Amino acid sequence: MARRRGGCCSRLPLNEDNARFCLLAGLILCYLMCGAAIFSALERPSELLARRLWDQQLANFTGHHRVSRKDLHMLLRQYEEANGAGIRVDALRPRWDFSGAFYFVGTVVSTIGFGMTTPATIAGKIFLIFYGLIGCAATILFFNLFLERIITMLAYIMRWCHERRLRRAGVGGSSGGEEPHSEEDSLEGWKPSVYYVMLILGVASVLIACSASTLYCTMEDWSYVDSLYFCFVAFSTIGFGDLVSSQRQRYEAQDAYRLGNCLFILMGVCCIYSLFNVISIIIKQTLNWILAKLACPGHCCSCPLRQQRLKRNAVQPAPSHCPAGRHRYTDASVETVCDSETDAGAGPDGAYGVGRRLSGEMISVNDFTASNKVSLALLQKQLCETAHQGPRQSQARHNGFSGGVGAFAIMNNRLQETSVDR
Amino acid sequence: MARRRGGCCSRLPLNEDNARFCLLAGLILCYLMCGAAIFSALERPSELLARRLWDQQLANFTGHHRVSRKDLHMLLRQYEEANGAGIRVDALRPRWDFSGAFYFVGTVVSTIGFGMTTPATIAGKIFLIFYGLIGCAATILFFNLFLERIITMLAYIMRWCHERRLRRAGVGGSSGGEEPHSEEDSLEGWKPSVYYVMLILGVASVLIACSASTLYCTMEDWSYVDSLYFCFVAFSTIGFGDLVSSQRQRYEAQDAYRLGNCLFILMGVCCIYSLFNVISIIIKQTLNWILAKLACPGHCCSCPLRQQRLKRNAVQPAPSHCPAGRHRYTDASVETVCDSETDAGAGPDGAYGVGRRLSGEMISVNDFTASNKVSLALLQKQLCETAHQGPRQSQARHNGFSGGVGAFAIMNNRLQETSVDR
Repeated sequence: MARRRGGCCSRLPLNEDNARFCLLAGLILCYLMCGAAIFSALERPSELLARRLWDQQLANFTGHHRVSRKDLHMLLRQYEEANGAGIRVDALRPRWDFSGAFYFVGTVVSTIGFGMTTPATIAGKIFLIFYGLIGCAATILFFNLFLERIITMLAYIMRWCHERRLRRAGVGGSSGGEEPHSEEDSLEGWKPSVYYVMLILGVASVLIACSASTLYCTMEDWSYVDSLYFCFVAFSTIGFGDLVSSQRQRYEAQDAYRLGNCLFILMGVCCIYSLFNVISIIIKQTLNWILAKLACPGHCCSCPLRQQRLKRNAVQPAPSHCPAGRHRYTDASVETVCDSETDAGAGPDGAYGVGRRLSGEMISVNDFTASNKVSLALLQKQLCETAHQGPRQSQARHNGFSGGVGAFAIMNNRLQETSVDR
Repeated sequence: MARRRGGCCSRLPLNEDNARFCLLAGLILCYLMCGAAIFSALERPSELLARRLWDQQLANFTGHHRVSRKDLHMLLRQYEEANGAGIRVDALRPRWDFSGAFYFVGTVVSTIGFGMTTPATIAGKIFLIFYGLIGCAATILFFNLFLERIITMLAYIMRWCHERRLRRAGVGGSSGGEEPHSEEDSLEGWKPSVYYVMLILGVASVLIACSASTLYCTMEDWSYVDSLYFCFVAFSTIGFGDLVSSQRQRYEAQDAYRLGNCLFILMGVCCIYSLFNVISIIIKQTLNWILAKLACPGHCCSCPLRQQRLKRNAVQPAPSHCPAGRHRYTDASVETVCDSETDAGAGPDGAYGVGRRLSGEMISVNDFTASNKVSLALLQKQLCETAHQGPRQSQARHNGFSGGVGAFAIMNNRLQETSVDR
């Protein structure tokens, strides 16, 4: 692991990573600028209209009732303060009975934070900080474990479908001695495409949001668009609080509605969290692609340093035999999509694709496994045996590593491989 | 990778993972219940007081000005609606000018969602859904890349400190032929402790929160506790919106304050996000420990199934030579802490600890590398060569894998290793 002192190119991957980080920061800034301009254009007229309307309503009231502006402003300030304690003209559910407090802590640990209920006492505020610190961390872990479970499940299902498809194709085609072997091989190297996973999660999210919206439409008398907007705001944990479900004092079938509300929000948050993470893989691929384009615009790199960097950190534009729209990187983190080409048309021999890929100096673990066709089961056995025997064996991954969870899986990678990277 | 059909115990790791997931869900539920009870006890009296106060204020006003309750309620409802459009008695900054909209989109993509500004038009609401989908995913990627950068940096600094300490100890002690070798070895296997990383991130978060609170105290006239509370709520992306910075129409040094506000929130969110993720590692370790205790309470497991499970998924109670409070797992995701024992007192020979660890059937990658002392640089070269030559080599990790980011690093693990796990 003492790669740090290994050579001049050992520091380059960090630069690559930093470049990606800075590029992303720049792009997000642009995205924010554009968003601000668009929202400003969309909402500014409505704001001015609302202000005019309110001024008129205020003028009407003071004119009609001969109340001084000053007194009225005083009352409205008092009302604002009462609002902060969760009081409205139309009675809402109590804020701090057990069920209200439960809803509140749910919005805290999930970081939704609608703000329909907020602690008013100093003790409550201080307790919130410590409560939230543990609660939010536990919920992040929960979301990451959920992500792990859902990806495992999806991969299992998709693998099963892929297996069935292959078997059918095997029945339809020639059943020589070579056929079953290559079929098994392509299954071994097979992984689900990140695009399919995104599609499935997207569909699931839309289904949950639509079902929840139907419920909210009926129970809260919101329009369907408002309900969908609420669902997105709640599920993405933004939680503005302009619309909050289950706030009235009484509903029909109140307990069932409250339970349904909680379950929908829980499912929605988990699904959208997974979806965000899958989308962020694709964003990262795009960043890698942009970086590769920037480092090597059009023609083959003339700068030796750049070439070295490309070789070293494996962000490479797609070779010519890569299907359009999909790009190959030797970066293992994005390799998944490439490998899924087996599924996406390259045929059962797609798993043999390593021979075609050796344009980069390094190959990814995925490629390596796919090309070598070593069953992990066998490998683990071997690994276990060699570990008992002696040193100087090559390093290997086994599925204990799959226990890594979420955002900190990378941290473990980092903590483990930092000395390699820098 | 065709481990799925390999034997009866191939399904057990899933059960282990599921058990961890269910245990966490149960614990979070208990945590929510306790939190709800405590908050309810803390805040209920204040709510009742606020309600009595408001009723009295309302009675005073109607009594004094001879305004009917009905008319007043109508006005207050109108005021609530105006509130939704961002209108207050005391003039606030315009909601939807460019800077206001920029603040708004910042709270969207970071999922803080204060709710001080919310889209009122249907077009704005629909646009928000699509805008937030990309924006939140990009920001999750940003946070994960930040996490990766910060962990890399911390590990680098801590490694440097550790190196210096070792070198000093080397100068002070005997400088035989064995000494420098074992020193280098312990550096090779060395990784920073997750507890130290948590401590550093915690201190950084507290420093940022305190500096920001001092700023808010001065500029917003909040109390220091309120400012700290606001910092936590904003940095953790809960974003209630009961307190929101930079909302008045005018401040002294307004532009500088707005910039400072944005920077503090950005730094705070990144730090707290990293802190949450580090804490969640520790929570996961605790879960593993609880699961191990549940599977093997006190005495050595009598049930053969349990024993098999323990062997297979490597959640094991600490062996007797493990320092108190720290537990060894062969699960690589938590191995980091164990390996850091090199740093935490086990001495330079800690990296040789594999011999002591072989109580489980499987060993982790970390153990394996640490014991085998193969420089990753060499390994990669080897890997590269063998890839060009032929099949049936063992599978290996190289540092392209370190490009995996955040929550989806695990997804790549999942997508890659699912067929092993199930």
